[in-house]
Amino acid sequence: MPNPTAAMVVIGDEILSGRTRDSNMHYLARELTKHGIVLREVRVVADDQPGIVAAVNALRDAYDNVFTSGGIGPTHDDITADAIAAAFGIGISIRDDARALVAARCAATGTELNAARLRMARVPDGATLIDNPISSAPGFTVGNVHVMAGVPSIFEAMVASVIPTLTAGAPLLSQTLRIDRGEGEIAGPLSDLAAEYADLSIGSYPFQSNGVFGANIVIRGTDATRIDAAMTKLAGIFPGAML
Amino acid sequence: MPNPTAAMVVIGDEILSGRTRDSNMHYLARELTKHGIVLREVRVVADDQPGIVAAVNALRDAYDNVFTSGGIGPTHDDITADAIAAAFGIGISIRDDARALVAARCAATGTELNAARLRMARVPDGATLIDNPISSAPGFTVGNVHVMAGVPSIFEAMVASVIPTLTAGAPLLSQTLRIDRGEGEIAGPLSDLAAEYADLSIGSYPFQSNGVFGANIVIRGTDATRIDAAMTKLAGIFPGAML
Repeated sequence: MPNPTAAMVVIGDEILSGRTRDSNMHYLARELTKHGIVLREVRVVADDQPGIVAAVNALRDAYDNVFTSGGIGPTHDDITADAIAAAFGIGISIRDDARALVAARCAATGTELNAARLRMARVPDGATLIDNPISSAPGFTVGNVHVMAGVPSIFEAMVASVIPTLTAGAPLLSQTLRIDRGEGEIAGPLSDLAAEYADLSIGSYPFQSNGVFGANIVIRGTDATRIDAAMTKLAGIFPGAML
Repeated sequence: MPNPTAAMVVIGDEILSGRTRDSNMHYLARELTKHGIVLREVRVVADDQPGIVAAVNALRDAYDNVFTSGGIGPTHDDITADAIAAAFGIGISIRDDARALVAARCAATGTELNAARLRMARVPDGATLIDNPISSAPGFTVGNVHVMAGVPSIFEAMVASVIPTLTAGAPLLSQTLRIDRGEGEIAGPLSDLAAEYADLSIGSYPFQSNGVFGANIVIRGTDATRIDAAMTKLAGIFPGAML
C-alpha cells in the first residue's frame, strides 16, 4: 500500500520578503517522515485571499493531507480562516467552543475579550478544533486541511496533536553513505545502482567543505532488507566511504 | 509603476523529506527585496519531471521572473535541465561553451571529462549561461526562468550574477515597531491604520519571548514619506514601543 501523501501551504508576506526565515516547513517535513507520510509539495504564498484559495484547492485535491501555517491571529492581516472557508465554499462564524477557549484565556491573563480576540474564535462551518496549549486560540481541520498558527512554538504543538489522528504509512527508512569524491566520479555507478534498485529512492546530495567536494548518498524506502542490500553494494563500489 | 514580481521553485526530495533545511529561499527573498523585486510565491517540488514542469509553467506565466534551485548536477537524480526543456517544449543538448567550462574544470582538477560530467554541459536550446565561479558547471536562463544550483554557496554566487541583469523596481522600504503587548490589544488600532494607509503594506508578526507576548509591526512600501507618517502615527498610539 502506498504511503499517505501531504502538502503544505506556508502563508505570510514576511517569509516572501525575507524578513523571517521559515522553520515550520522543515519541522513538518521531519515529523511527517517519522510517521510514514510523504510530503510531496510546499507552496509559500502571500497574505492574499485569492492566492491562498488557489493553493489550498489545488493541493487538497492532489494529496491526502494539507497543512497550513500562519494567518490565524487577531490582526487585519490574519485572513487564513476566511480564505479556507472561501476555498471550501462554506460559511464561517464565531463558534461557542472556540469562543470559550479564547474567553478562558482572557480571564486567565486579565485581558479583554474584544472584537480582535473574538476573530480568533471564527471557525469555518463543520471544522474540528486543533488544540493550542500555548496561547489557547485554536487551529482547525476542515476536510483534509489542517490550519495552524505560524508562530513556531504554536505550530509545533498543533502538529503534535494532529499527526496522531492521521493514517500513518509504513515507516520511511533511510541510510546515508558519505563519499568524499566529486559527484562526477560517483554518478555512473550510482545511476546503475538506481536502475537495479528502482523500488528505492536514491539521492545524491553534494557538499563542499574546506575545498573538498563530496556527496552524501541517501537510499530511502520502506523495505529495510532492500535498503541494506543496496547500501552494501554501494559501499563495496566505494571502499573507504563513511556510513 | 508597479514593482517587478518573481517566484521560485525549490527542487529536491531532500528538502521535502526533512533531511535538508533549505536556505536558498530565504537568501533569494532578501536579495530580491534589496533590488525592488517582489517575491510573490515559492513552490517546493520533488525530483519528478511532471511536478517540476507544472510548477515552472504555472509560475513563468504569472510572474516576471522565476528562479529555480537544485537538480543541475551530474547524477541520475539531477533532472532539472531536462524538465526545463520539457516545460518550454524545446530541445536540449551538450553545448560547446558549456562543455568548455566543464572541460576546463576537469583539466584544472585532474579529473576525467566523463559522461556524468558532460551531463552538466547539457543546456536547453537558446539558453544564456549563468556563471558558476565555484565549480564551473553553469546555470542557465531560458526566457524568464533562471536555473541555478542547489548547493547554497553556488546558488548564492549565481544569484549575484543574475540579479544585476534584471529590471529593478523602486526600493522596497520598511520600518518596524516592536510592541510588547498581545496582538489582541494592538489589532483594533492597527486595522484602522491599515485602512487609512491602504497604499502601504502593514503586517503584524507576533512573538513570544520569556512568557511575554508581543508583535513586530512592519510597515512596507516604496514611499518613504508615507511610511514615516504611518509609523509616527502608530508610535503615537503605542507610546513606549521600540522603533
